[in-house]
Amino acid sequence: MLRSHTCGELRISNAGQTVTLSGWVQGVRDKGSLLWIDLRDRYGITQITIETDKASKELVDVARTLGREFVISVTGTVAERYSKSDKLETGDVEINPEKIVVINAAITPPFTIEDETDGGDDIRMKYRYLDLRRNSVRKNLELRHRIAIEVRNYLDKLNFLEVETPVLIKSTPEGARDFVVPSRMNPGEFYALPQSPQTFKQLLMVGGFDRYYQIVKCFRDEDLRADRQPEFTQIDCEMAFVEQEDILNTFEGLIRHLFKSVKGLDIPTLSRMTYADAMKFYGNDKPDIRFEMKFVEMNDIVKGKDFKVFDDAELVVGICANGAAEYTRKQMDELTEFIKRPQIGATGLIYARYNLDGTIKSSVDKFYNEEELKKWVAAFDAKPGDLMMLIAGEENKARKALSELRLEMGNRLGLRDKNKFACHWIIDFPLLEFSEEVDSTSVGEKGGRWHAKHHPFTSPKLEDVALLETDPGAVRANAYDLVINGVEIGGGSIRIHDKNLQAKMFGLLGFSKEAAQAQFGFLMNAFEFGAPPHGGLAFGFDRLCSLFGGADVIRDFIAFPKNNSGRDVMIDSPSPIAQAQLDELMIELKK
Amino acid sequence: MLRSHTCGELRISNAGQTVTLSGWVQGVRDKGSLLWIDLRDRYGITQITIETDKASKELVDVARTLGREFVISVTGTVAERYSKSDKLETGDVEINPEKIVVINAAITPPFTIEDETDGGDDIRMKYRYLDLRRNSVRKNLELRHRIAIEVRNYLDKLNFLEVETPVLIKSTPEGARDFVVPSRMNPGEFYALPQSPQTFKQLLMVGGFDRYYQIVKCFRDEDLRADRQPEFTQIDCEMAFVEQEDILNTFEGLIRHLFKSVKGLDIPTLSRMTYADAMKFYGNDKPDIRFEMKFVEMNDIVKGKDFKVFDDAELVVGICANGAAEYTRKQMDELTEFIKRPQIGATGLIYARYNLDGTIKSSVDKFYNEEELKKWVAAFDAKPGDLMMLIAGEENKARKALSELRLEMGNRLGLRDKNKFACHWIIDFPLLEFSEEVDSTSVGEKGGRWHAKHHPFTSPKLEDVALLETDPGAVRANAYDLVINGVEIGGGSIRIHDKNLQAKMFGLLGFSKEAAQAQFGFLMNAFEFGAPPHGGLAFGFDRLCSLFGGADVIRDFIAFPKNNSGRDVMIDSPSPIAQAQLDELMIELKK
Repeated sequence: MLRSHTCGELRISNAGQTVTLSGWVQGVRDKGSLLWIDLRDRYGITQITIETDKASKELVDVARTLGREFVISVTGTVAERYSKSDKLETGDVEINPEKIVVINAAITPPFTIEDETDGGDDIRMKYRYLDLRRNSVRKNLELRHRIAIEVRNYLDKLNFLEVETPVLIKSTPEGARDFVVPSRMNPGEFYALPQSPQTFKQLLMVGGFDRYYQIVKCFRDEDLRADRQPEFTQIDCEMAFVEQEDILNTFEGLIRHLFKSVKGLDIPTLSRMTYADAMKFYGNDKPDIRFEMKFVEMNDIVKGKDFKVFDDAELVVGICANGAAEYTRKQMDELTEFIKRPQIGATGLIYARYNLDGTIKSSVDKFYNEEELKKWVAAFDAKPGDLMMLIAGEENKARKALSELRLEMGNRLGLRDKNKFACHWIIDFPLLEFSEEVDSTSVGEKGGRWHAKHHPFTSPKLEDVALLETDPGAVRANAYDLVINGVEIGGGSIRIHDKNLQAKMFGLLGFSKEAAQAQFGFLMNAFEFGAPPHGGLAFGFDRLCSLFGGADVIRDFIAFPKNNSGRDVMIDSPSPIAQAQLDELMIELKK
Repeated sequence: MLRSHTCGELRISNAGQTVTLSGWVQGVRDKGSLLWIDLRDRYGITQITIETDKASKELVDVARTLGREFVISVTGTVAERYSKSDKLETGDVEINPEKIVVINAAITPPFTIEDETDGGDDIRMKYRYLDLRRNSVRKNLELRHRIAIEVRNYLDKLNFLEVETPVLIKSTPEGARDFVVPSRMNPGEFYALPQSPQTFKQLLMVGGFDRYYQIVKCFRDEDLRADRQPEFTQIDCEMAFVEQEDILNTFEGLIRHLFKSVKGLDIPTLSRMTYADAMKFYGNDKPDIRFEMKFVEMNDIVKGKDFKVFDDAELVVGICANGAAEYTRKQMDELTEFIKRPQIGATGLIYARYNLDGTIKSSVDKFYNEEELKKWVAAFDAKPGDLMMLIAGEENKARKALSELRLEMGNRLGLRDKNKFACHWIIDFPLLEFSEEVDSTSVGEKGGRWHAKHHPFTSPKLEDVALLETDPGAVRANAYDLVINGVEIGGGSIRIHDKNLQAKMFGLLGFSKEAAQAQFGFLMNAFEFGAPPHGGLAFGFDRLCSLFGGADVIRDFIAFPKNNSGRDVMIDSPSPIAQAQLDELMIELKK
């Protein structure tokens, strides 16, 4: 037996007991006559105290060889501490050891194993096994475990079945790029890794499974932006004999259960916002509604006053930041720079301060007198002390830029508290979006093509089906996203369950009949054997965990993440493979 | 709302209620004045009864268009049945419909959706979504879900953390063949899919995670024998600060919990058998101990009687089958043929009947008189009515053949009841096994090489470490298998946690220092930073499910299995991919 208790377990009630603890040496303090060892494991830290005059020479000698991160086993008596610590749960006791065994020595770690470490990202990833020893990282993964358990508890109670779908599937050209796996037994042929279990979960519905879920790895071979991983985890769900309302209610329940069971929070009923309203009032299909600061369209008010920037713009739109009227010139310059950055791309920022003394002072006083500015105040419903900010330009660009500015102001004004959670649904997404990009499968008058906004299996709203022929862009989908604090945490749709509608959809997306049959024939065939109405959604599990953990990056919630080049720097993968392996697979590297 | 209740839910207490059910048409019986529809969903079957004289013409017309597997929605009143059925849980009631809506028609399925279907394996796999509608298949996957939930419940209570390890890892030459994934971002380099999360779970132990588990997909590119899948699922577990005893106790607890919670069975304490005894008494490292029929070594008794077959044999070994003395000549011929099949390869079967009248009659009476045969009876402790069967030959081959014969006799004598479960541990496996096969990494005097019996990370027993230098084949490992009903359900070991011992092990296995460092450097480096003693095991989840389901094939416990060529015949995968995909990956097909 290597331990009788963990390092987080002993209390004053254990005083007098003989115990054995094992763990890592967090630190040693040697004051000559007294020597302390902090012994750490996953559960906590326990202090070992040695009175060097009274202890055996052998014991003291061993203790004095110990370094940080040595693995040791300590047998001794639990005693009440002379000076208690309220920082540790074990702070009332210490161990007076009879025996210390060095199980494994350690060389000096390349960074400190502390909550606030001195290790940068790269070194922490290379020695991820040491990084995992830090409380802060381990707590993230404990949180992840807890959320997974509660997801399963909730869904199991509602008769959802967790079903494993295959990882070695078939490559499809729609959507992001697939990772592929050459088949040795079928030379020249490849499996693909799933971007999601979409078609399989739909087949489970056709197969009568009714309620399915899976916490499942998915794969996308994308150029990795910051905080994207080539392999990521989804909570994937599907239900049959349901309408959109059933799905929203079921998974609103899941989210409320998670907040309650994991964080002890009762969150209010989720509000619902149409995609159109989200774009109109927040310029964004995943608005952060922890704070208001809605967009106000200003064309009617500001145009025709000889200010060319506004007169030439398709849209002038603004927000009102409460209590920011006293922002300095320097702060305003920062905000202007912020929205002029290439990734945002606005041309400039117009603003008006509604001062506490009731005066209004704008950056365009030359064109707008106080009377005009009072119309601004009315439009924004501004109060003394508020700052009105306007952006002008092409409609979509102006909205996008203002959305970024709104979030930045939210940050600056402390309106985006990580411990506050605003959850809501975005509904009524458009079914299709038009892409100007021309490729071999292009159709449509502009030479570009329609893409599925969600995916090709999403059902249009029945009342909009007729528009598929005449105005595809106006067709709304039975699709929905769950947004928490401005982050898209999940999304899904009611699916098409009719073979003809599915065929029409593939046609709109530029698939030839033959291509549709080759790629998705199995699904369309399945629809001929009695497919039930069905729909579902998927949550980004990594993202959900980081949100619950109050963090911005998902990487810290993944045990062994990859870097932005898709590389695991700890195991040094990907890596070359042997020629014999290539030969067996009947493939060659391109010179 | 598409349904108010499921098809398995209504009882006599619901009589008089107006309900809406949705599901599939299991069948229609039209007797003219009465018409019955059996409506099926995942939860059961409910009878819809139409009195055609009283119902509207419209309703009757719709009902008469229905075929098998149509998806319909029925709204009507729950009524007590005139003639109740005790075969259905809903057998006390029927629905008198007001409205029937055909949600989706169905063409005739290629096989019947019944427990006993008329569909063969191939057609069932091609239309797996229809096969999944069959009760018997769905129940298997419901069982799988239930077992997974109970595994997690048990391990969660013991503070195990489920941690997801990566799927895109690094290829290693040891063990079975890897599936590999070309990296587009790192041309010429490949990821590999994990054969198990072995090194990652060990790194989690180095990282202080203490107790880890995961229900996880693993991958092996093997030539598929019957009932092997290229992707399969393991319950993968690891613990730190433990000895073998701790692991055996923890996971004996898991197995007992599963039998109790899933099957309502209290199974007795698991016995333990050494590998040496398993081979000696059963010729098999995963003996089925639902029945005794132990091997008896007969060299001392049968040699020297001028019977050349026995005199020339390295080993003569036998079993005694209770009550089989009256087997006919035809039965004995069958058994002889059975053990002479190429995959077993025995040269012949010698037997002696201990008849109920006390006489003994053998197939080698020419060499063994009654007095000699009485020694056989004594050796086998045979009773009148028993059949003694002997096999002679090279030791390992004779044991292997007799093991097959023993299992066959177990089947014939009804000793292998699928509803009885005999669980036990096999312990003290040899660390290494010698392979005559010569390859580039060969070492050792015979020109062959040592292979790890379990895997290269398995710890030798400390008392045997010295033998590594002198007699590697005699070194026992801290390795163990869990065997249920003659099937290896799980296995594992205490791992090496010392860098030098691990390096010595790699050396024994024929790795050069450079190769060991290139493949497993990250693990050996990790051992330098304070690695705790650790060990674990993995259960074959597919196999465990099939065992709990009383079935022999794992395929029926996997939602979307592949066939013996590694092919998913439903989606037709693997398949060729586009030239553009190959180009992006910088690979070419070999001509």
